[in-house]
Amino acid sequence: MRKTRIVALAGGVGGAKLAHGLARIDAEGLAVIVNTGDDFVHVGLNISPDIDTVLYTLGGIANRAQGWGVEGESWAFMDQLARLGGPDWFRLGDRDVALHALRGERLRRGERLTAIVADLAGALGIASAILPMSDTPVPTIVSTPQGDLPFQDYFVRLRCDVPVTGFRFDGIERARPTPEALAALGSPALEAIVVCPSNPYVSIDPILSVPGLREAIGNAGAPIVAVSPIVGGAAIKGPAAKMMRELGHAASALGVARRYAGLVDGFVIDHADSADAEAIHALGMAVLATDAIMRDEDGRERLARECLDFAGRLGRRT
Amino acid sequence: MRKTRIVALAGGVGGAKLAHGLARIDAEGLAVIVNTGDDFVHVGLNISPDIDTVLYTLGGIANRAQGWGVEGESWAFMDQLARLGGPDWFRLGDRDVALHALRGERLRRGERLTAIVADLAGALGIASAILPMSDTPVPTIVSTPQGDLPFQDYFVRLRCDVPVTGFRFDGIERARPTPEALAALGSPALEAIVVCPSNPYVSIDPILSVPGLREAIGNAGAPIVAVSPIVGGAAIKGPAAKMMRELGHAASALGVARRYAGLVDGFVIDHADSADAEAIHALGMAVLATDAIMRDEDGRERLARECLDFAGRLGRRT
Repeated sequence: MRKTRIVALAGGVGGAKLAHGLARIDAEGLAVIVNTGDDFVHVGLNISPDIDTVLYTLGGIANRAQGWGVEGESWAFMDQLARLGGPDWFRLGDRDVALHALRGERLRRGERLTAIVADLAGALGIASAILPMSDTPVPTIVSTPQGDLPFQDYFVRLRCDVPVTGFRFDGIERARPTPEALAALGSPALEAIVVCPSNPYVSIDPILSVPGLREAIGNAGAPIVAVSPIVGGAAIKGPAAKMMRELGHAASALGVARRYAGLVDGFVIDHADSADAEAIHALGMAVLATDAIMRDEDGRERLARECLDFAGRLGRRT
Repeated sequence: MRKTRIVALAGGVGGAKLAHGLARIDAEGLAVIVNTGDDFVHVGLNISPDIDTVLYTLGGIANRAQGWGVEGESWAFMDQLARLGGPDWFRLGDRDVALHALRGERLRRGERLTAIVADLAGALGIASAILPMSDTPVPTIVSTPQGDLPFQDYFVRLRCDVPVTGFRFDGIERARPTPEALAALGSPALEAIVVCPSNPYVSIDPILSVPGLREAIGNAGAPIVAVSPIVGGAAIKGPAAKMMRELGHAASALGVARRYAGLVDGFVIDHADSADAEAIHALGMAVLATDAIMRDEDGRERLARECLDFAGRLGRRT
C-alpha cells in the first residue's frame, strides 16, 4: 500500500527535474500530478509531452542535454515520414514513437490515461506515482492576435514566435481529477505539496484549473511550496518570461508568486531575485532564497531537499 | 490521363516482384490490384503488409534479402516497445512505422485507403497505380482445429505452425471494388491481366472474393495469365504448399491451376513442373513452361515480359 508523503505538480523539463530530485529522496512516497494540457495527436500518435518528460526523467533515460526525449535517440522514423510527405515540424524519435503508439492503442480501446501511464512507469522501473492531472483531454488553446492556436502549433511549429493574449483549456469544465490524484492528496502521510518550477500559465494553471483539484490541493493540509521558474528575469527554459511580458505581468519571481498567492505557503526563489523577497512575503508567503538552478542530478536532489525542509519548517496548514 | 495496359493482381513478396518486373516494362501502363486481407491494426498502427511490400518493392527501397520491409531498416522502435511492455511478435522497423502512422492518421480522418496509398506511391516516385482491392477492411480469418485466428496471429505469431481447415474474409459481402480498380479493368488499352505468383488462398482469393471484382476481371476482355507460386511441389516463399496439403489439395502447379480454372486463359509454370502441363491444359488453359523463379531484378523483368508475350499470343477474350 503506497503512502504518499510528497505530491509534486509538474509540467515538462524543469518540473521533471525537481520531481526527479524528490524521487531520489523518497521514490515510493512521491506522487507527481502532471499537466496534460499539451497532449495532442500527431500523425496518429498520442503524445503527452509533459508526462513523457517526467517518465523519461524519472526512468533515467531522458536526453540530458535537451531535457526532453530519450537519450541516444535515433531519427529513422522522422526521415521516412518526411520522405513520405508527412509533417516534419514536430520531431519524433524512434524510441519515443513506441511509447506514443502503445498509449494510443490503449486509449482507443477506452482505457484511462492514468492506468496506461502507471504501466509505462512500472515498465521503466519508476517507483513514484506519475498521475495525469485528468483522464479527460483538456487541450490548451493559445489566443493570439491572429486567432486561436493549438498549443503545439504555437510552441513547436511557430517556436512561440507570436505574442499571446491568453490561454484556455478546452473542455476543462467537464474534466475531473482522477481518483488516484485525489487519493494522493488525501494521504494521511502527506508532508508537502511542491509546485515545481514549471510554466505557470501552460503547465501549472491547467492542473489548478481542473474543477476540484485546486480545492483538493488547498484542503490537503500539507504545506504548499512553489519554486520560481523565473530566475533573474528570465525563464530557466521555455517561454514563461516572454508570456508574462506579453500578458502585461512582470517577468520576475514576484510575478510568478502573484499568480500563486492564496494557494501557496512558501515560495522558493534564487539568490539573484532576493530583491523580490519582501514583496513576495507581503503576498502572504514565506520565502526561501537559494540556488534555484538544478545543474545536475545532485543539484535536483539538493533543491528538492531544500523544498522539503522549507515545507517542514512551515508546518501543517490549518 | 493514365492508360492502363496491364493489370496485375498481387499479394506480398512474390507478387510484388513480378509487379516490379511489369513496372520496369511499362510503369505508367501498370495498375496493381493488391490484397488487403492481411491488413490489421497493431499497437495502434495501421499495417497493410501486401500493399507496403508492393510500395517498397516498386519504390526501390525494399529489403532485398527478406523481400519485405525497408532496406537498411533500424529497430529502435521495437527495442523500446519491448522495454515498455508492448508486444514484440510482429517486427516493425523504424522507417516502416512512419508509413503505418501516416496511413492510420488519414484512415481515422475518414480518408479512403486508395487515396492514401496513391499519395504514398507518389512520394516514393512510383508511376504505376497501386490499388487496394477494396477500401473496406476485409480481414482474413484462418480456421484451425483450435478455432479461428486473425491472419497475422496465424502467419507471424504462430509462424503458420497450426493446420488450417479454411479461410474466410470477414465482411467481404459488404466490400466493393474501388472505382479506380474498376476503371483500370475497364481501360480500353488493357492488354493483359496478370495473376502474380502469390498465395492463392490468402492473397489472390481475397481479391477475387470482393463482390463484383472477379466479374470485372473476367469481363475485361484482356487475356488473363497466372503464374504458379508453386515450383517443384514447394512454395517459392510462404505457406502456400503447406496450406494446399492441409486443405486436401495437391501441393503442385496443377493444384494452383485448378483453383483458377474458369477464370484464367494461360498458366505459367516452371520447367520443373512440365509434367503438369497436360493436366493443366485439360482445365482449359494454355500453358507456358519457363524459368518461373525471379532471382534478381532482371529475372523479374524477364518473367514479366514472358507473361506479357504469352498473353499477347493468347489474344483478346470474347
